[in-house]
Amino acid sequence: MTTPEPPYWAVIFSSTRAPGVDGLADEAGYQATAARMEELAASVPGYLGIESARDTTGFGITVSYWASVEAIAVWRDQVEHVAARERGRERWYDAYELRVARVERAYGWKRSTPHP
Amino acid sequence: MTTPEPPYWAVIFSSTRAPGVDGLADEAGYQATAARMEELAASVPGYLGIESARDTTGFGITVSYWASVEAIAVWRDQVEHVAARERGRERWYDAYELRVARVERAYGWKRSTPHP
Repeated sequence: MTTPEPPYWAVIFSSTRAPGVDGLADEAGYQATAARMEELAASVPGYLGIESARDTTGFGITVSYWASVEAIAVWRDQVEHVAARERGRERWYDAYELRVARVERAYGWKRSTPHP
Repeated sequence: MTTPEPPYWAVIFSSTRAPGVDGLADEAGYQATAARMEELAASVPGYLGIESARDTTGFGITVSYWASVEAIAVWRDQVEHVAARERGRERWYDAYELRVARVERAYGWKRSTPHP
């Protein structure tokens, strides 16, 4: 994911999904809300991007990137986001950790020739 | 994952695995090296922990946590780690981004009663 030159901010969200009867709890509701939250985050001035990975055990890491802590505060306080967090604790997660960090250095690498 | 009170440091490593003939490229070699790298990181004074998730498309996020930038530099310069990064670019990855960030705030939540 492309981000500008540091400094900027990262919100690291690590979570363990709650087990459901058949797979993870309320997977459809979770997916719909996750998509909506991404859309909502993207509407906040200072949003730089988001990336996410979840493994088959239900453990996942989502990192969103922001131009400032003020932008993160706007995102945190959005009414729909507050409600989604409440549903997350009720239904979707068994545990999570959230860390707000200031990105000081960054670099990327990309294969220049197709992989053999 | 339990970490001490901030401030401390996070290395956010986002990567796209190279496709192989049958699944991701050299998956066994990758897994063995990833396990060894985790062991090696844990031997560095100032290492606080690591967490990782990769989805079925081959996109993954690994975050390691450190007490100081000096600890990160020791980890970065370990000979075995330098060699593993080289193999990563040769074989395992199509692209990656690495970000070094100072964690300023953190909190966690855990379900206190079993999920219904």
